[in-house]
Amino acid sequence: MNFQNPDDTIVAVSTPAGAGAIALIRISGKKSIEITSSIFSKKLNTAKSHTVHFGQVKDGDAVIDEVVVSVFLNPKSFTGEDIIEIGCHGSAYIQREILRLIVSKGARLAAPGEFSLRAFMHGKMDLSQTEAIADLISSNSKAAHKIAMHQMRGGFGNEINSLREQLLNFASLVELELDFSQEDVEFADRSALEKLITAIYLKVDKLIDSFRLGNVLKNGVPVAIVGAPNAGKSTLLNALLNEERAIVSEIAGTTRDVIEDTIIIDGIEFRFIDTAGIRETSDRIEIMGIERSYEQIRKATVILLLFDLKGEKVNHILDQIELFRAQSIAADQHLIPVFNKKDEINESDFNALNSKGIFISAREKGNLDQLKSELLKAVSSLNTENDQLIVTNERHFEVLKKCKSSLDKIKEGMSQQIPGDLLAMDIREAIYHLGEITGTITNDELLGNIFGKFCIGK
Amino acid sequence: MNFQNPDDTIVAVSTPAGAGAIALIRISGKKSIEITSSIFSKKLNTAKSHTVHFGQVKDGDAVIDEVVVSVFLNPKSFTGEDIIEIGCHGSAYIQREILRLIVSKGARLAAPGEFSLRAFMHGKMDLSQTEAIADLISSNSKAAHKIAMHQMRGGFGNEINSLREQLLNFASLVELELDFSQEDVEFADRSALEKLITAIYLKVDKLIDSFRLGNVLKNGVPVAIVGAPNAGKSTLLNALLNEERAIVSEIAGTTRDVIEDTIIIDGIEFRFIDTAGIRETSDRIEIMGIERSYEQIRKATVILLLFDLKGEKVNHILDQIELFRAQSIAADQHLIPVFNKKDEINESDFNALNSKGIFISAREKGNLDQLKSELLKAVSSLNTENDQLIVTNERHFEVLKKCKSSLDKIKEGMSQQIPGDLLAMDIREAIYHLGEITGTITNDELLGNIFGKFCIGK
Repeated sequence: MNFQNPDDTIVAVSTPAGAGAIALIRISGKKSIEITSSIFSKKLNTAKSHTVHFGQVKDGDAVIDEVVVSVFLNPKSFTGEDIIEIGCHGSAYIQREILRLIVSKGARLAAPGEFSLRAFMHGKMDLSQTEAIADLISSNSKAAHKIAMHQMRGGFGNEINSLREQLLNFASLVELELDFSQEDVEFADRSALEKLITAIYLKVDKLIDSFRLGNVLKNGVPVAIVGAPNAGKSTLLNALLNEERAIVSEIAGTTRDVIEDTIIIDGIEFRFIDTAGIRETSDRIEIMGIERSYEQIRKATVILLLFDLKGEKVNHILDQIELFRAQSIAADQHLIPVFNKKDEINESDFNALNSKGIFISAREKGNLDQLKSELLKAVSSLNTENDQLIVTNERHFEVLKKCKSSLDKIKEGMSQQIPGDLLAMDIREAIYHLGEITGTITNDELLGNIFGKFCIGK
Repeated sequence: MNFQNPDDTIVAVSTPAGAGAIALIRISGKKSIEITSSIFSKKLNTAKSHTVHFGQVKDGDAVIDEVVVSVFLNPKSFTGEDIIEIGCHGSAYIQREILRLIVSKGARLAAPGEFSLRAFMHGKMDLSQTEAIADLISSNSKAAHKIAMHQMRGGFGNEINSLREQLLNFASLVELELDFSQEDVEFADRSALEKLITAIYLKVDKLIDSFRLGNVLKNGVPVAIVGAPNAGKSTLLNALLNEERAIVSEIAGTTRDVIEDTIIIDGIEFRFIDTAGIRETSDRIEIMGIERSYEQIRKATVILLLFDLKGEKVNHILDQIELFRAQSIAADQHLIPVFNKKDEINESDFNALNSKGIFISAREKGNLDQLKSELLKAVSSLNTENDQLIVTNERHFEVLKKCKSSLDKIKEGMSQQIPGDLLAMDIREAIYHLGEITGTITNDELLGNIFGKFCIGK
C-alpha cells in the first residue's frame, strides 16, 4: 500500500485494460483542475461542477487525442476532492501518453484502491462501504450483487454503528457507576445491563452465523457430484451446464481432474465440482483423484450422490446412502441422492427409492428442474430469515468473532459481579472491534490490507 | 452490418470487457433521454447538454447501481443525436443488468461501429475520419498514432476533397465545351486542361506511393533476421527485445519456428522476424523452416544478414553478401549486413568489412544503437518528404488505384483528342472513386464493410 502524501494529486486508468472504444482516466486531488487545464485545449478554472467539456489533449503542439473531460468539484465527488475524468479513445498508446503527460505535470500514479481510500479518508464512505465496492465489481449473480449493493449503500455499516452505539450507551452507564463507586451507588441497573448485553450478543452471534450463507452467496454454493465410476457424473454436470465441458467417456475412471464450473439458478450461483469416481482401485493416479474427491466433499455445501440404476440393487443403494450420510456428511452439509437412468428399474424398486432422492435421466436431461429446485431448497434452509443482514466479508466475520469473545467476557464478568473498571475494559474492546468494521478505528496496516487488494483506478 | 432503422435508439458498452473500476454504457437516439429517465433516480428531461448527474439506476425498487450519467444533446454529441453515457461500476453483472433494463425500455443493442456510422450519417465526420478512429484505437506507436490522429481530425479527407474539387472544376470546363460542341467552340483550353489533369495525376500517384510507408508505419516495419545456423540470430533478437523470447541454444538448427516480436525505435514500430538458419540440410523439418525463412525475406522491408565472424573468412563473407543481394533482395528492400562477435577478427579483416555493414556483439549487446539507427535510416529513405500526406488504409489505397486508372484513361483520351462526352464519363468515374474515400459516394455494402469491422460500442 502506498501511504504517500495524501495531498498528492493522483491519476489512474479506471476502465479495464484491453481493446475498447473508450477508456476513462481519473485524476483526484488539489491540482486536478490545474494539471488538466495545462494539457487540455480549454481552461477549466471556472468550470462548474458536474459539467462536461469536449476538446483536445495536447503535448505542446501535438494533439494526443480528442477527449471528453468531466469536472467534479469537491466535496461533490467520489473522493471528496476535485476530480477530473478524461474519456479518451481506448488505445493503449493514447492512455499511456495521457498518463505520462499528467504525471509530467505533477500528478502521481495512484496506488491500488487509493481513490476509495481517499473517499474513506474524506468521510464519503465508511470502511465497509468501500469494501463493498470491490464485492460489487466482482459480483456476478443477483444474490451477490444485492448484498454488495446493500452494503455499499451503507446498510451494513448502519447496523454495525447501531450496535456500537448501544455498546457505547452501555459503557457510559457502567462508567457512570464507576464514578460513584466509592459511594457504593449502583446507577446502572444490573439486570437492565444484562438484558442489553444479551441483546447485543444475540445480534452479533446472528451476524456471525450469517457468514456461512453470505460466503456461499458471494462466492457461489459449492456442490460436489459424487458417485461410482460411470454413474454418469460428467454427463449430469454437462447436462446442467448445457455444454460439453467435461470429457464424457464410456471407460470407467475417465474423469481424473477436478473440473469446476458454475451455473446461476434463480439469481444464486452454484459452483459444480465434478469428481473422480469413488471406488476401490490400485491405480495410483486414480487413487489421487479419489482422495481429491473426498477433499471436495468436505468443502461442499451440497453433495449430489449419484447412482446408476442400471445393474444396482435397490437395497444396496439404500445402504450406500445411509453409509455415506453417516461417514462423510457433516451436520451443516446437504446430501441429495440422485438416481440416474430411471427407465432401468421396475415399479416396486421405484417406490422404494422415491422418497429417498430424485430420479433423473442425465443423458436425456430429464427431470433436471426438480434437481435445480432441490439445490435452491438446500440454500434457502441456510437462510432462515428473509431480510436478515448478511456478512459476506471474511474480515468482518473475523472482527465479529473477536467482538463476540469480548462480549463473552463481559457477560461472564457481570455474572461474577467483577468491578466496573474491569468490565469497562472489555466493553471498550468490543466497541473497538465494531469500529474496525466501519473504520471508526483504523491503522495503516488495516487500511493497507483492505485497499491493497483493490484494483488500480478504484 | 445491421442496417436496421436509423431512428432506433441504440445502446452498447463502450469500455473494454473485463475487470475494472468503471464501465461506460452509451445510448444514442431520439429516446435516449426518455429511456434513461425511466430507469434513473433523476428525471433528465430538462437536463442541459454537457452536464453530469449522480444517482441510482433502478429496476423497480431494486437499486442496480449508483452511477454517473452524462448528457449530450443533439447536435453537440459524437453521433449528432441525443447521447447518454452511464458510468457504472465495472461488474459484468451490473453492465448486463443495465443493458437489459435499457433494452426493455425500448432501445436496441448497437451493431459494431453503429455509433460511428451515425456520426457519419449525421455529417459529424466524413468516412475517412470514422475509419481513422479504428486506426487510432489500434495504434501503438507514435508514428501510427500521428497519422491516425491527422486523418481523424480531417486532414486526409480535406486533401481528397480538394483533389475532387479540382476534378469537378475540370469536368465543368469539359462539359461546358460539350454544350457548345455543335458550334465547334473550344471553351476549355486543352493545354490548360492537360496541365490540370497531370497535376491531379501526380498527386494521386504520390498518395498511392505513400501507402508502402503508411502500411509499415501503421502495422510495423517487417524486419527479417537472416543468417547461417548459429550465427547468433536468436541472441541478436533477444538483445534487441531485451528479454529471452526465443530459445537460445548452442546446437545448430534450433530455431525452427518463425518467432515474431516488435520494438519501437523513435516512435516507429519494427516487427522482428527470427528465422531458421539458412544452410544446406537434409532434415525435413529444417528444410520447412528454411523455406519459411525465404518467405519472410520476401515480405520484409529490411533484412538483417547476420554473420558470425568466428571461423568465417572475410572474402567468403563479402561473396555471400553480394550473392544474397543479387539473388534475394528486391529493389525496394533494404539489406543491412551485420557482423557478430567483432572481437574475433584482426585489424585488416575489420577494415575490409567496415564499410560493408555493422559490427555488433549480440551476446554483450554491443553496438546495438548503431544497428537501431540503421533501421531508422532504412525507413526514413521510404519517406522522402516530411510533411507528405500518407495513405495507411488499404481501402483508400485500392480506391486511389482505381482513380489513377481513370485518370490514365482521361490522359490517354485527351492525347487522342476523343470527344468531350466520352472524356466526361472517365472524369465522372475518377470523381466517383475519390468520393468513395470521404463518403460523398456510399452504398450499403461499402458502409457494411467499413463499420462491420469496428468494435461494438464505437
